[in-house]
Amino acid sequence: MIHLQGATLLTPEVEYRDGVLCMEGDRIIYAGPAAGAPPPSPGDEIHDLPGRAIIPGFVNAHTHLAMQLLRGIADDVALQPWLTEHIWPVEDRMGEEDVLAGTRLALLEAVASGVTAVNDMYMSMDRVAEAIVESGIRGVITQGLIGNADPERRRLKVGTDLYERWQGAHGGRIQVALGPHAPYTCSHEYLVEVAERAKALDARIHIHLAETPEETQELAAQGRTPAHVLLDSHLSDQPVIAAHYVAPAESDYALLSGMRIGVAHCPISNLKLGCGFAPVARLRAHGIPVGLGSDGAASANVLDPFLSMKAAAWIAKGASHDAAQLPAPTVLRMATYEGALALGLADVGQLRQGFQADVVVVDLRSAQLQPVFDVASALVYTATSRDVERVYASGRLLYQGGRHLAVDAAEIIAQARRGAERIAQRTLSS
Amino acid sequence: MIHLQGATLLTPEVEYRDGVLCMEGDRIIYAGPAAGAPPPSPGDEIHDLPGRAIIPGFVNAHTHLAMQLLRGIADDVALQPWLTEHIWPVEDRMGEEDVLAGTRLALLEAVASGVTAVNDMYMSMDRVAEAIVESGIRGVITQGLIGNADPERRRLKVGTDLYERWQGAHGGRIQVALGPHAPYTCSHEYLVEVAERAKALDARIHIHLAETPEETQELAAQGRTPAHVLLDSHLSDQPVIAAHYVAPAESDYALLSGMRIGVAHCPISNLKLGCGFAPVARLRAHGIPVGLGSDGAASANVLDPFLSMKAAAWIAKGASHDAAQLPAPTVLRMATYEGALALGLADVGQLRQGFQADVVVVDLRSAQLQPVFDVASALVYTATSRDVERVYASGRLLYQGGRHLAVDAAEIIAQARRGAERIAQRTLSS
Repeated sequence: MIHLQGATLLTPEVEYRDGVLCMEGDRIIYAGPAAGAPPPSPGDEIHDLPGRAIIPGFVNAHTHLAMQLLRGIADDVALQPWLTEHIWPVEDRMGEEDVLAGTRLALLEAVASGVTAVNDMYMSMDRVAEAIVESGIRGVITQGLIGNADPERRRLKVGTDLYERWQGAHGGRIQVALGPHAPYTCSHEYLVEVAERAKALDARIHIHLAETPEETQELAAQGRTPAHVLLDSHLSDQPVIAAHYVAPAESDYALLSGMRIGVAHCPISNLKLGCGFAPVARLRAHGIPVGLGSDGAASANVLDPFLSMKAAAWIAKGASHDAAQLPAPTVLRMATYEGALALGLADVGQLRQGFQADVVVVDLRSAQLQPVFDVASALVYTATSRDVERVYASGRLLYQGGRHLAVDAAEIIAQARRGAERIAQRTLSS
Repeated sequence: MIHLQGATLLTPEVEYRDGVLCMEGDRIIYAGPAAGAPPPSPGDEIHDLPGRAIIPGFVNAHTHLAMQLLRGIADDVALQPWLTEHIWPVEDRMGEEDVLAGTRLALLEAVASGVTAVNDMYMSMDRVAEAIVESGIRGVITQGLIGNADPERRRLKVGTDLYERWQGAHGGRIQVALGPHAPYTCSHEYLVEVAERAKALDARIHIHLAETPEETQELAAQGRTPAHVLLDSHLSDQPVIAAHYVAPAESDYALLSGMRIGVAHCPISNLKLGCGFAPVARLRAHGIPVGLGSDGAASANVLDPFLSMKAAAWIAKGASHDAAQLPAPTVLRMATYEGALALGLADVGQLRQGFQADVVVVDLRSAQLQPVFDVASALVYTATSRDVERVYASGRLLYQGGRHLAVDAAEIIAQARRGAERIAQRTLSS
């Protein structure tokens, strides 16, 4: 058994100043006050961690890991030209090798930032699944389906084959969703076909929805709304992860309340691409779990949950003129448990007996964090990913004191640099 | 002479991939391509810095350093109750010892984040000046003047005495401004008196202006606007640093164009307190230099210029629905040179021959930053304060590889913790 003790422990109900967390195998055995903790047995690992916080691993509820290789390739450009003029032309020439190199690089950043679960939509997803398995964390993977470019339904077949190959693999660490890219890249007929396939497989849906107000306006011109698209196509017969949801229609809220849906709020990407900001407080008030996603590094530049938390809290308050919106404990819950709920990971995202031992230790002792009057506030508003000291996933120590223990970080960085050079050369020569 | 070489050097005009920066005494002697650099002489210090960026030190254009001691004491609360119910009651009982402890702690964070100039408004400013001198950086200091609490003009006298004691001290490293707190805490008559005093001293003005839309609405109800307040009181006869300026009146822009004024944009504080966001692009389009400020750590929680840059870029794009607003090089310029311009520091904020040797080396080699297609983008959108490797101010190395060289960081942290405990006890017993 592993005992982490002497730290501030953030459980769902209580913050224990002198908390203890015990793990055995891939499970949390105990999370609570020192007084009630199981006594160490001979051979147990014991770590005294004063000045640290112990929190659940972060859930990145929407990302495109392989786009790590495109970080910084086209900044300060709006969503539509960014996609059509910069990203898609490069992606068209990305091979499996690039996807693998980018995903492995992204997972270095994710793990070092305390992320222990990701929800990824991209292509060449077998490579992505392999990289996630190698990294030691868990992931929901989705083949992105741009219906308008899939007349023969070959991509849809790739997506369903992926499900059959990977769903529940590695002790459930890999889950598979079906991923119609967005209402503006998939016809109604295509969405209906995806919904049928999802129902047959009992698969979750992962879709970009209402990423811009313009997208919602275009649907309105057709007499539809984002939630109506889900309902009408029967996609919402299955659980849905809706990424972004910057611009729900007014009538969407009532429809959403009847669905099994979670939202992946991606504040950095939404702001940086000029898309706006999702009405998080209102979505949550309707009972919808809202996780935090980074989106890909090509738009957000970072996969850092500490930055996503800051951006989510800041923009919720700033846009509403209400400083009380999304207080720090709520933001922490979104970044962990609500993300897990949105992804359908039932035993993930809380420090609770019987839950997966996805556990992060954050060092709160640096000068840049002092004083610490309130640990949740310090984690959300002050700490950075560089303050992450230890990362466990499924009870396995993946990262400690700046070093990756499950993978060869230097080799991954070198491969990624070669991949980025290939991309730069192709871009220059196009 | 100190030679920094082999890095990417960001000069005002050109980004040199293989740049060289030479410093001697407190000045930059050379900043440009390796080809034209002065050859090293015997006894020179030479540092090879591949994979790093060399940038000017950051200018924190508006802060309250001593509030570092109040970090996290009252989060998720709106500006007015935050001031009147939480901050002012605590501040009333802060002594000189607390101000010194908080300021020294804040300067640890500032220096470690690459900040080499601060614009501070607070009380017990002699202690603040001493702490800035000790830290090795430069500062503009201002006694905060809450006119409505200064019937005898005792604080105004403290502020003018401060000017006479410190203006230009330590080779110009300390500058002093006069600081009427805000239009809503100072009567017209008081502002006129401050303006007269500033004119007599030839001092710069530092004021909180239009921090909320409500403030501008209240002025409108009196037939006034924020810029009109400056003009009408004659404060704008002197150069002015206007902090925040979230809500200019429509007629302000024309008035501002005729003033010697700079704005300190504090995006994190403005968002987190629910105040809104300043129209930075429009202010800059009117020729007004806009620097970046953190505000105090009690509202912003961090003094980190890397976070201020991210927040400024994100919110400018998100609020305008224009991803091209405030591109990375502009944000870097705001965080350095425009801040210096706003503060009247004529030879600060650029890597340029003859300028002050305020120089920061950022390590771009970590996994979390790869790949680096564009250095300005990496600095603004991806890098964190923890990537700062070396900080020079006036040619003196203050910080390297996580270690403070000019001060005893452990002692400062210990003193600050004792100060925070005093404050917590007073708060609990009140």
